[in-house]
Amino acid sequence: MIKKAYIGVDLGGTNTKIAIVDDRGSIIARSMIPTQAMRPAENVVEDIANEAKRLKKEAEQKEYKIYSLGIGIPGLIDWNRGICLLLPNFPNKWKHIPIKEWLEEKLSLPVAVINDVRAITLAEKRFGSGKDVKSLILMAIGTGIGGGVVIDGNLYIGKDGSAGELGHIIVEPGGIKCGCGNRGCLESYASGPSIVAQALRSLVQQNDTMIRDMIKGDLNLVTPKIIADAAVAGDEIAKDIIKQSGFYIGVALSSACVVVNPEMIIIGGGVAQAGRLLFESIANSLKENLHMVPVSTIQFTETELGMDAGVIGTATWSKEKLIKGEIILDSE
Amino acid sequence: MIKKAYIGVDLGGTNTKIAIVDDRGSIIARSMIPTQAMRPAENVVEDIANEAKRLKKEAEQKEYKIYSLGIGIPGLIDWNRGICLLLPNFPNKWKHIPIKEWLEEKLSLPVAVINDVRAITLAEKRFGSGKDVKSLILMAIGTGIGGGVVIDGNLYIGKDGSAGELGHIIVEPGGIKCGCGNRGCLESYASGPSIVAQALRSLVQQNDTMIRDMIKGDLNLVTPKIIADAAVAGDEIAKDIIKQSGFYIGVALSSACVVVNPEMIIIGGGVAQAGRLLFESIANSLKENLHMVPVSTIQFTETELGMDAGVIGTATWSKEKLIKGEIILDSE
Repeated sequence: MIKKAYIGVDLGGTNTKIAIVDDRGSIIARSMIPTQAMRPAENVVEDIANEAKRLKKEAEQKEYKIYSLGIGIPGLIDWNRGICLLLPNFPNKWKHIPIKEWLEEKLSLPVAVINDVRAITLAEKRFGSGKDVKSLILMAIGTGIGGGVVIDGNLYIGKDGSAGELGHIIVEPGGIKCGCGNRGCLESYASGPSIVAQALRSLVQQNDTMIRDMIKGDLNLVTPKIIADAAVAGDEIAKDIIKQSGFYIGVALSSACVVVNPEMIIIGGGVAQAGRLLFESIANSLKENLHMVPVSTIQFTETELGMDAGVIGTATWSKEKLIKGEIILDSE
Repeated sequence: MIKKAYIGVDLGGTNTKIAIVDDRGSIIARSMIPTQAMRPAENVVEDIANEAKRLKKEAEQKEYKIYSLGIGIPGLIDWNRGICLLLPNFPNKWKHIPIKEWLEEKLSLPVAVINDVRAITLAEKRFGSGKDVKSLILMAIGTGIGGGVVIDGNLYIGKDGSAGELGHIIVEPGGIKCGCGNRGCLESYASGPSIVAQALRSLVQQNDTMIRDMIKGDLNLVTPKIIADAAVAGDEIAKDIIKQSGFYIGVALSSACVVVNPEMIIIGGGVAQAGRLLFESIANSLKENLHMVPVSTIQFTETELGMDAGVIGTATWSKEKLIKGEIILDSE
């Protein structure tokens, strides 16, 4: 009997993960290659395709048949046509890169393109923290703040694939300028860089904080992890910064909850993993800021699949698009 | 051939509208009775049931068969059990009134209970401004600010029926106290009473405004309509109040758009009808505050069905619940 599997690709600024994933979300084979994002997009995609082919052969030797490939993109994409519109963190920005077309040509497999955090959301829904609920919102807090929305058991991406851009919920109208062009977005108040910026302000304003010693006076060394460590060690400045971020995240989640009234909220991302204090601050803020929806009935939890969520989600997205007949090879 | 129809009830604090609605959203027969909300809930429901029976007979004489009844409630409800939990604007609050059970008993029809603005949203989706789109959000600006969300062509009410409570999106964290218990909700910044409160502040603080003459010095006479009229006449204070409300509404809609990325935004409600200035201010704020979603591609429009939307929506909701087998008479 043929066992079905799908290729998942999680394109990152530093490394790209590639895996073969089966119907139950298990990884059959995996690999990670350096993205070397300063190169032309053609070369990056070529490397991905070659590595995917190698893994595909490996899986076929284990009697799997590979049906499709999904790739998660950390930026703006045209979902329907599978074109990268803008990868802000890539040196050459990948403007109008037809990644779906290139990969389909090289691999002769139908390819689905998805935003990276939406892929994580789908993975957590199908195989992780959210597998037993019909609706959820996921927020990933890292360099940026991304998210995803599950409704009636399925990932909901909206008209242009922007449903779930929770980092751009406005928490301070007219506030700090955000990378998106707007002012006052959550991302400007609670992302990794925003937390670092607050610590830098405290340092240059000569606030009394142990962060100064931890970075040996070098401002370049401030990271969300160091701030979290300082908070755990009892540093009041660090604790304030993290509590403030948690407050704003809770405010944004509260606004998201009155829009979609989900069963579950899942928190993930690198910054979220930096410590319990942030998670607890978010939970407290949510209790304080959510009244129209009975907050006690919303399950509040963390991601379960960790670093594998990206490849599991992208592979699964391609599978679901394939089943619905929404991706198909032109040659078929 | 039997023509199918459904009863729609729009329970209001002053008047209750009742209508017989056919499959195409057309009204076959209609009535309006004074709610007399100071009476015990039993008596109010009895009057509604009697009037519904009368209209039902009228429709049956026109060869319609009535299949179900939907009732829209301006307050908190337990959707599944059809119980009113709290009607804040009713003198005796209707706490734990089993309205579905009472109406089913009196009418021998399956009854579906829905929030009043969610019913309007459904009506606008099926037969009004939204009939050609698959996703939309509707915001009704009146004494309160309500809303509704349509996803994949259907009204989406969320886990507890609270999806679409757009008046409780937070626009100023820690801001003005809202009736829901929270602080900084949109409703505290842009509802009818909030607009009136801002005008009252200007009046008692002796700002130079023509509103003073329009109300002949009697603060009790300030209404959103008078403020809108003053704005149209060029009063700067009134214009500022309305622009500020529009700004906050645009901020909240922007946050809702990054959560669900809809094709269309529909604005309705009594305050919205007070003048073009508010509508234009909302549109401008949306342009200013929405960046992650291409704002030019979102259709921005007004409600089309006017005062009939409530009864059309409630009747249609009961029809859709019936078709899905989600309401059924115990005796069947």
